[in-house]
Amino acid sequence: MHDDTPIGEMIPFTITRYRNNELSEEASRVAAEIPLTFHVNGRELATLMCTPSHLKAFACGFLVTSGFIKSADDITSFSLDETKWRADIKVRDLVDPELLGQRVYTSGCGKGVMYTSMMELSSRHPIQSDVQIQGSDIIAVIHWLQHCSDLHRITGGVHSASASIKGQIPDFFIDDIGRHNAVDKVLGTLLLEKTDCSRVMLACTGRISSEIVHKARRLDIPVLASRGAPTHQSILLAKEMGITLVGFVRPTNFAVFTHAQRILENGDKK
Amino acid sequence: MHDDTPIGEMIPFTITRYRNNELSEEASRVAAEIPLTFHVNGRELATLMCTPSHLKAFACGFLVTSGFIKSADDITSFSLDETKWRADIKVRDLVDPELLGQRVYTSGCGKGVMYTSMMELSSRHPIQSDVQIQGSDIIAVIHWLQHCSDLHRITGGVHSASASIKGQIPDFFIDDIGRHNAVDKVLGTLLLEKTDCSRVMLACTGRISSEIVHKARRLDIPVLASRGAPTHQSILLAKEMGITLVGFVRPTNFAVFTHAQRILENGDKK
Repeated sequence: MHDDTPIGEMIPFTITRYRNNELSEEASRVAAEIPLTFHVNGRELATLMCTPSHLKAFACGFLVTSGFIKSADDITSFSLDETKWRADIKVRDLVDPELLGQRVYTSGCGKGVMYTSMMELSSRHPIQSDVQIQGSDIIAVIHWLQHCSDLHRITGGVHSASASIKGQIPDFFIDDIGRHNAVDKVLGTLLLEKTDCSRVMLACTGRISSEIVHKARRLDIPVLASRGAPTHQSILLAKEMGITLVGFVRPTNFAVFTHAQRILENGDKK
Repeated sequence: MHDDTPIGEMIPFTITRYRNNELSEEASRVAAEIPLTFHVNGRELATLMCTPSHLKAFACGFLVTSGFIKSADDITSFSLDETKWRADIKVRDLVDPELLGQRVYTSGCGKGVMYTSMMELSSRHPIQSDVQIQGSDIIAVIHWLQHCSDLHRITGGVHSASASIKGQIPDFFIDDIGRHNAVDKVLGTLLLEKTDCSRVMLACTGRISSEIVHKARRLDIPVLASRGAPTHQSILLAKEMGITLVGFVRPTNFAVFTHAQRILENGDKK
């Protein structure tokens, strides 16, 4: 299984197609999945299966949302060995994993791992952002996100995420085979670019479970929107944390689960 | 957030609906997400966010697919405290987590955790099952799976999984907010019922990444089928392990990525 050649986001495969009750050979492309190992200050922290792109942003997002470091400035060096999928990262002020408390294996569409102490996050004051976003802009952003990814269109095997400022169409999106990874990569990008998150809407294509809300909370992002469904725990958390949670975004409508005061009807002034 | 009342699989919420540029209140139901903590032989092993159903099967599937125990017979007692979402499990021959090697945080739609040593699994001989399944039966099973869940229809927030014997419509399905959890619950059910897995097709609705293939391998399941896409790593693994991997199952066609010899065209004899 080991191969020294760096791989792209898509891998060609010859498959057998079953169609009209017959089998035939066909060319296809599938989403790449690589095991990326984070070595932080010489210590092996975790191996994550992911799409091989935006790996520095991924490292930054993962380390911050997991509670290991506070900001992108804490990263003093990053190097990647693509033949071993090993990222060597040096950081200032690494929080000892033991101090982050009991690990919680969360579900997403899977069992995510959250190192962060949930108690620490929930004791923060609720997000106070007064940003307001037109409902029609939310629909436009999620529609754009659903259609911007060639990797998704060709492989059907990835989730996309992005960040919009006040409902504007974003200038980037990121795909990953894991929806938490896609969110970590987007948050890492915001951190590395020192984006002011007080007017950011985190947009994603997958379902929203509690850990996605926790990740948004860590960057003080006030609005979270997805084409997918939220879980009840994500709603309870978003309510408590002051985050506007929007789900089931469709061409003509969507559901606002918490803090609807940030959503504007047509004609309302921003 | 703590509540002593046991909850069901769905939770009612009042939401704000944005439709035709206007906001209005509406009743809705969302999928429940609970933090289930496994205490095994007095040791806290993990907390997993999941749907509150089939929790004994979940425990069994999780412990076996993670490599902590070998079979359902190793579980000598199981008790659940629904007010704390705590499962106390006694097992024979618990493998020490430290012996399971470096934890790998896999992606799925998230970051799954696999305790199991991949080397141990990949050194096993490939699955030799001579089961063969009609292509039209695979389409029928996945169609059934997509439409059998009220929880999915109402909340949109869960994945379903099931197990078919030789392509027959299964007699059960299981939902979970996490697709790995749904698979662990189905595998736990097969283990508890001592099902002969040599003719089983594991059916699921979500994408297939490497850890789903690993889980199937642990029970020697020869066929894995999903409406979703596989990753390239899952294809490499399935090829090596002798598992037939079927993806993108649609009403008239599907893609076979590995070991197509187990798929029959119309008219072929079983």
